Amino acid sequence: MNLNSLFVRSVARFVILAGAAVIAGAGSVGVADEGMWLFNALPKQHLKETHDFEPTDDWSKHVMLSSVRFNSGGSASFVSSTGLVLTNHHVGADTLHKVSTAENNVYRDGFYAESWDQEIPAPDLELNQLVSIEDVTERVNGAVKPGMSAGEAFAARRAVTSEIEKESLDSTGFRSDVVTLFGGARFHLYRYKKYTDVRLVWAPEAGIAFFGGDADNFEYPRYCLDVCIFRVYEDGKPAAIEHFLKMSDNGAADGELVFVSGNPGRTQRIFTSAALKYQRDRYLPYVLSFLHRREILFQQFGFEGAEQKRRAKDELFGLQNSRKAFTGMIRGLQDPGFMARKIEAEDQLRKQVEADPELRQYADAWQAIEEVQARKAELLGQTGGLAGQVYNIASTLVLMAAEDQKPNAERMAQFAEAGRQSLEMQLFSPAPIYPDLELTKFADSIALFVERRGGDHPLVQKILAGKGPQARAAELMAGTKLMDVAERKKLAEGGQAAIEASQDTMIQLARMLEPETRRLQKINEEIAETERQAYAQVADAQFAVVGTDTYPDATFTLRLAFGTVKGYQENGQPVPPMTTLGGAFQHEANHGQTDPWELPAKWHASKDKLQLDTPFNFVCTADIIGGNSGSPVINRDAELVGVIFDGNIQSLTSDYFYSDDVARAVSVHSSAVLESLRNVYGAGKLAKELGR
Amino acid sequence: MNLNSLFVRSVARFVILAGAAVIAGAGSVGVADEGMWLFNALPKQHLKETHDFEPTDDWSKHVMLSSVRFNSGGSASFVSSTGLVLTNHHVGADTLHKVSTAENNVYRDGFYAESWDQEIPAPDLELNQLVSIEDVTERVNGAVKPGMSAGEAFAARRAVTSEIEKESLDSTGFRSDVVTLFGGARFHLYRYKKYTDVRLVWAPEAGIAFFGGDADNFEYPRYCLDVCIFRVYEDGKPAAIEHFLKMSDNGAADGELVFVSGNPGRTQRIFTSAALKYQRDRYLPYVLSFLHRREILFQQFGFEGAEQKRRAKDELFGLQNSRKAFTGMIRGLQDPGFMARKIEAEDQLRKQVEADPELRQYADAWQAIEEVQARKAELLGQTGGLAGQVYNIASTLVLMAAEDQKPNAERMAQFAEAGRQSLEMQLFSPAPIYPDLELTKFADSIALFVERRGGDHPLVQKILAGKGPQARAAELMAGTKLMDVAERKKLAEGGQAAIEASQDTMIQLARMLEPETRRLQKINEEIAETERQAYAQVADAQFAVVGTDTYPDATFTLRLAFGTVKGYQENGQPVPPMTTLGGAFQHEANHGQTDPWELPAKWHASKDKLQLDTPFNFVCTADIIGGNSGSPVINRDAELVGVIFDGNIQSLTSDYFYSDDVARAVSVHSSAVLESLRNVYGAGKLAKELGR
Repeated sequence: MNLNSLFVRSVARFVILAGAAVIAGAGSVGVADEGMWLFNALPKQHLKETHDFEPTDDWSKHVMLSSVRFNSGGSASFVSSTGLVLTNHHVGADTLHKVSTAENNVYRDGFYAESWDQEIPAPDLELNQLVSIEDVTERVNGAVKPGMSAGEAFAARRAVTSEIEKESLDSTGFRSDVVTLFGGARFHLYRYKKYTDVRLVWAPEAGIAFFGGDADNFEYPRYCLDVCIFRVYEDGKPAAIEHFLKMSDNGAADGELVFVSGNPGRTQRIFTSAALKYQRDRYLPYVLSFLHRREILFQQFGFEGAEQKRRAKDELFGLQNSRKAFTGMIRGLQDPGFMARKIEAEDQLRKQVEADPELRQYADAWQAIEEVQARKAELLGQTGGLAGQVYNIASTLVLMAAEDQKPNAERMAQFAEAGRQSLEMQLFSPAPIYPDLELTKFADSIALFVERRGGDHPLVQKILAGKGPQARAAELMAGTKLMDVAERKKLAEGGQAAIEASQDTMIQLARMLEPETRRLQKINEEIAETERQAYAQVADAQFAVVGTDTYPDATFTLRLAFGTVKGYQENGQPVPPMTTLGGAFQHEANHGQTDPWELPAKWHASKDKLQLDTPFNFVCTADIIGGNSGSPVINRDAELVGVIFDGNIQSLTSDYFYSDDVARAVSVHSSAVLESLRNVYGAGKLAKELGR
Repeated sequence: MNLNSLFVRSVARFVILAGAAVIAGAGSVGVADEGMWLFNALPKQHLKETHDFEPTDDWSKHVMLSSVRFNSGGSASFVSSTGLVLTNHHVGADTLHKVSTAENNVYRDGFYAESWDQEIPAPDLELNQLVSIEDVTERVNGAVKPGMSAGEAFAARRAVTSEIEKESLDSTGFRSDVVTLFGGARFHLYRYKKYTDVRLVWAPEAGIAFFGGDADNFEYPRYCLDVCIFRVYEDGKPAAIEHFLKMSDNGAADGELVFVSGNPGRTQRIFTSAALKYQRDRYLPYVLSFLHRREILFQQFGFEGAEQKRRAKDELFGLQNSRKAFTGMIRGLQDPGFMARKIEAEDQLRKQVEADPELRQYADAWQAIEEVQARKAELLGQTGGLAGQVYNIASTLVLMAAEDQKPNAERMAQFAEAGRQSLEMQLFSPAPIYPDLELTKFADSIALFVERRGGDHPLVQKILAGKGPQARAAELMAGTKLMDVAERKKLAEGGQAAIEASQDTMIQLARMLEPETRRLQKINEEIAETERQAYAQVADAQFAVVGTDTYPDATFTLRLAFGTVKGYQENGQPVPPMTTLGGAFQHEANHGQTDPWELPAKWHASKDKLQLDTPFNFVCTADIIGGNSGSPVINRDAELVGVIFDGNIQSLTSDYFYSDDVARAVSVHSSAVLESLRNVYGAGKLAKELGR
């Protein structure tokens, strides 16, 4: 799926209700290689029993500190003492596009900085290194008093969370996030060291990173060099990194135990059958319909010319990736057998809860969750906002000015003090905004707003001001200066007075929509809190019945997964665990060397120099999901043997359940990285720097 | 838009409520070149006043008899005494694809039969030549008695319609269709001579017929040789045709008065504001969502290989064409100014109706139409059926067996005796059905059925039988023999007994869904009749207020439109009325000679021989819509000067209203046809045959 959070990114913009609550399905822990484990609760005993391996505290601390999160959505690892960071090409793609121009297409053509001074600064990347985890459940829960309404409880939790984060930031200087785990049954404080001076060192051509394109995406066997390398700087110099991964001499081997340390974005394994039915019948069809619409829109935009195609590429990839992922998810849910198994497990748990006087307090949780689904269905597609970067900037400025007048604890979460630096980095990003693409997106979002509310809705009439969506969007875009970063800073500094005085069309539009944005936000907060309280009960019931040796649903925080390098069966045929560099040339020939199966010129030119039996991609049974893209795959000695970049098509239901039958994580083999650096890209110097 | 009814075809399969009722908007007749006029009610006076031209009865009879309808969806004309028929490449495309194979891609590579014996028979084409029109309004209305419910009225009309058609067929031997005009205020009997032995004579390459592809579709200036030539046979010999169009020496000229004789598929200009709001807020978003989904599905299928791409091409084109057309339509409706003008005109008419004691009987019609829209919204997306040719065949066989047990007058319209030959031609067509593409469509239609009804619906569970949509579709496809025409014939001949005894999985599935299909059909008949009665009142009110010198909405029957060859203004720049052959080479160069802007090899090879200033495409103000594709454009002397193939993007709102401001019909110039036949395709012999 190209497992980064691109799909979280591209979808998040119109999701009003993210899956609120998460915990692993009861009884599932028995499955061999299941789990996205918390670093402060690794399954040591299970690993010992099933794989005869016991991670020491030093081992896990080293792995944790060697792991890197791309805040833009993705995972990575430190791979040298000199600040080198290895991730996927498609995780870096956001930056590769931002530093590309019509004349110098770094995304398409690749890049290699032979010396430090040639490295290209990313305009708005923030990398996070997790340094500590602290359980703050008691303090968070203590803020919620009996008898509070859902809205009050939400506000109380938000207040204490902002307080904890602010205290932690002030006392440690680390980015501090309170993370909701186990559907709201646990709250942990995650502290991160931040790196914001990040520079591009090397990237291959998109043609080999994403060989086979949308057609091969989520397919296996694969032949993708989906990696690129950045370097973090501190005080203008390469950062000195203590914990980094060494390169394995031979990389991953068939049958080997491997670990994946990364940031899975979201799973929904705790979901009750009612929640899954809402996903199946309402939410996923809605999301897919949106993705189809957007994909066509971006394709059409690309028809306008080569430069338009380039500008649309990054988002188009995200849309295609999401569409394929969600299609796989709904297929899973539409299978009656799958749903029957979920219901059976749920019925069993509910019977145990009903039968046990101590657990009966949790019995109403499932009903509460079912009721919330109907409310979510009613609200589906109702947003107070429009799409496009400029509108988002305007809306952020408008909300921020108002929120900043409140005490920290009362602000909407995204405007709390602890996160201000990260927020401003995005808000004041100098990354290019393309007026033509921006207009296309913005106009279509107005058209969609008209569809969702109906043309006669008062808000619609206010937005349109007597014009059609396209004409009105053009008018609004013509009257805004928010493409200019200085203008954004001026408005942010001017606060509420500057916002109120602004004649900027987008600011005025965002102000007009502000009450609706807030109204929906409030409703959604209540729904989220109701759902969270219910899932916390479900989680507590599960803890009581099956114990606490389990893992929570994914939350885009650092987790350790493990598995075995292992092929599988498809249509009665064995699929081997690894492909080779030579296989890529064969795959190209099989498709007549046509787009998207054209290897870059450098690969053809270097073919004779290449060790063609070098492993290229491989599969393993580790439990991963979107957001894990770029995660290091390591062996027992914590050496890097590969880099996760995808799941196979059979893994697309892993949002809802894990299986090691035919679902597989797909990685770039570490040997392919070294071989191509040395013999395709003339980057032997960089290859030598890796692991040192 | 590539104005044939491909979009009617591709959409019709899931439309449960076609626009039932049609009449021109009141007061609109004053606009210079508006109107799709009935051949038995041509605007002679208006033409004389505005264009100083008065068509004689001989002139209009000659044009009518020279005009041809492609029953597959499109228009054409006889262009020689030897049975030659000229239409669009994209109207012929359905047949071009059906006679193509992986080895011999006639659609892509073009075709030319140098002699009669090389001409390729179309597997299932039916061409119609309109020979007479008779007003049967009185007889049809006489069948409906006061006090009948909508359902009873529908049945009564259907009965008398079947009776009239059967009598006419028996007495004349002509295909006989009762056509509903003016929203149900008038009923005319159309008689057609049918041609079912139709053979392909010449087609250019898809690359020049559809130069610029989906990107250039609906755009202008254009450079498309969107024509091909068939020949009709009778008794195994080329048919002797009395009325055919001669070729003009010079083709269309700037500023010239021209006529378009063709079969516009559907307009909705009579729609009330309530009906338009339903279109804007519910129906069009629903249709577009379906089209986006299908377009992605077919694109993905094409990724599987070159042969898959070929198989998917025809339907994919239809989907893209429809998506672009409907996008233009919803943009028009979302413009508040457009809707305001519609409402103003409607309010004016309603006031006149209220004020006039004789007209007050019609006053409730608008309210009735508004109420029906809510019922339509409820039913939107509810179908009793699934998609794919094989399922459609199964469903047709099942329904036909049951309907054939009833008297002719009581049968569903599509099973009435008068239309049996045409129905069987489709049902027993030997045209290829590709199992892989068929499975893809069928499986997706099951998935869509699950989405629409929800996974827990009893019908869904029956369809799925415990499997996911893809697995179940594969199982059902494996158990059917309906790909085999002989099997279909056997079941059709065996009647109800054969259907009941059949073990064919698709027959069994269609039988299981039959009650739901009939239930929805009944509801839709009632809705359609209610709407028709109301629109007949609106039409009568309009007749009373503005007179009867008007034209009804399009009904895929022969109409005469007229207009002027004339450029227009776009973004302040003049768009010239004509392009040239030389312009095509320039357009190719401007796009770097990349797909879809690559001229075929023959064009490059012939460039030196070509008169590059030959007009290629041109625009005129004639009032056309989808279904007009392939219509002859003729001059005052009834000579052929061009062939309609598209409308510009500004014309996409002509479903709802006509404008000659910037909306234009786009044609292939007759000189381009002759020049390319002679100097690109070595078909000078065929060029000579034209018009003789």
